[in-house]
Amino acid sequence: MKSLVLGGNGFIGSHVVDHLKAAGHAVRVLDRAMERFRAPVPGVDYRLTDFSDATVLAEALEGIDVVFHLVSTTVPSTSNLDPLSDIQSNLVDSVRLLQLMVQQRVPKIVYLSSGGTVYGIPEVMPVPESYPLRPICSYGIVKAAIENYLHMFHHLYGLEYVVLRASNAYGERQGHMGVQGVIATFMFEILKGEPIEIWGDGSVVRDFIYVGDLAELCIRAAVSNVSGIFNAGSGQGYSINEVLDAIAIASGVSVTPQYKPGRAYDVPHVVLDISRAKKEFRWSPKGTFIECIKLTWEWFKKYFYNKS
Amino acid sequence: MKSLVLGGNGFIGSHVVDHLKAAGHAVRVLDRAMERFRAPVPGVDYRLTDFSDATVLAEALEGIDVVFHLVSTTVPSTSNLDPLSDIQSNLVDSVRLLQLMVQQRVPKIVYLSSGGTVYGIPEVMPVPESYPLRPICSYGIVKAAIENYLHMFHHLYGLEYVVLRASNAYGERQGHMGVQGVIATFMFEILKGEPIEIWGDGSVVRDFIYVGDLAELCIRAAVSNVSGIFNAGSGQGYSINEVLDAIAIASGVSVTPQYKPGRAYDVPHVVLDISRAKKEFRWSPKGTFIECIKLTWEWFKKYFYNKS
Repeated sequence: MKSLVLGGNGFIGSHVVDHLKAAGHAVRVLDRAMERFRAPVPGVDYRLTDFSDATVLAEALEGIDVVFHLVSTTVPSTSNLDPLSDIQSNLVDSVRLLQLMVQQRVPKIVYLSSGGTVYGIPEVMPVPESYPLRPICSYGIVKAAIENYLHMFHHLYGLEYVVLRASNAYGERQGHMGVQGVIATFMFEILKGEPIEIWGDGSVVRDFIYVGDLAELCIRAAVSNVSGIFNAGSGQGYSINEVLDAIAIASGVSVTPQYKPGRAYDVPHVVLDISRAKKEFRWSPKGTFIECIKLTWEWFKKYFYNKS
Repeated sequence: MKSLVLGGNGFIGSHVVDHLKAAGHAVRVLDRAMERFRAPVPGVDYRLTDFSDATVLAEALEGIDVVFHLVSTTVPSTSNLDPLSDIQSNLVDSVRLLQLMVQQRVPKIVYLSSGGTVYGIPEVMPVPESYPLRPICSYGIVKAAIENYLHMFHHLYGLEYVVLRASNAYGERQGHMGVQGVIATFMFEILKGEPIEIWGDGSVVRDFIYVGDLAELCIRAAVSNVSGIFNAGSGQGYSINEVLDAIAIASGVSVTPQYKPGRAYDVPHVVLDISRAKKEFRWSPKGTFIECIKLTWEWFKKYFYNKS
């Protein structure tokens, strides 16, 4: 299978590349820059450009069997600051990708959507894929619109697609500048000896998925012959305070967080119903939460001390 | 109540203007051109410009209590030809409008969405507002995304909104160039003595709403103090063949249509559940289908013979 990973040098993308290579697939990566934490992966065909560069994108699509679309120029917390640029850089460029795929007869796409934002404030736990979408941030609105365009391109042109509504991914090689995920941020703050800040009282509950499990699901979705939408989480909910407890256990460092006022775009409680993905792709998360937190901590510790 | 009607010189807009004037409200209209079928309405403050002109739009919002957003640059059948321009001209410009409204403290918007496209191919009849959105044309995807931005701006900034998911509107002053509605198109073809063409076998069922009923609902939504999403139809379904029968009765002209191949973006069956709008706004459609078809036919006949 010849695969193109858009955003393949990012956090999740780098793990998708690893799983593809391990399974013997040919891998092409299109991204703006090389990986931050590793040397280039041998055998990968790297194309460095912006996702909005339609010419290079069209070239990169040549001979491809499946596209993994993992690109996002925004995160939930920044998307509301400038929804117009969110639409421009994510929605417009994604629809252009679908048009190019149809033109060049690339048959399938795996798209990483957002289980944490597309449902808005769900009133059912765990939330199934059939739950109405009522996002309250631009990030989620754009993801939902891209999902709809995938459905439309499937209906009109036969493009095969799998949407994975991922929950909060964490694991090795995650960025830790405060926008990519609380687990990476907390771990880096502990290593630096800096105070840990929590928006709200720490009761916000999220579904966290280990990045290795998510990457494995991406590959299984790609080789399957279904089109559709699937939640991609652990199916378990942990509060921010519980996450901090797990990190304390993994790291042996006990911390007292500083609580700050909550944010209007934070959804109080999201846990995904992952029974559909489990059944359709014969997949399930491998390790326990604490096991995966430990793996993650070990990587962060090693990275931090090598760097210092 | 000082109202701004975006698209107020179009088919539905012109009826909203009439109902607003009749109820004694101040009316400002922003549209690209003057009304096609009538002289300017006395007392209306007309601003002629494109909806994408943010400067004039900002000026037009000054002192306004409620905005009626009835602008769409596409229709379902054309939106798929160029989804990128659909996003640009409808979604981007609508989000910019919401930003301007928040900046200028305009408290409320009534937005005309599309009950015929946002649900995609619904499997429940009549379809309620809570039904998941799975549009299969860009027109419906963009409408759904705008609905989501309204919900987000309400949640984040307190902007009050009513979304009306209108079914197929018909009535006096509808365009008849083949894109705005089958009823106007059929009537004009009969008057011209031209053959009537039907895409598919005429079994496609739609919910048709008389434009006077829809305009009345717009005003009731504007003066209410609720925010939310409401279906806006007749709650009744008629097949294209039944529509043609009703027109034959109203006009006294019997016609034999020519059937052409169906189109992939045509949803086979949509009837809206309008119980929410009925209850919340104490509103219901006034005349029967055949009565409203007769009113519409009389206008078309008069227009056609005055013009010829």
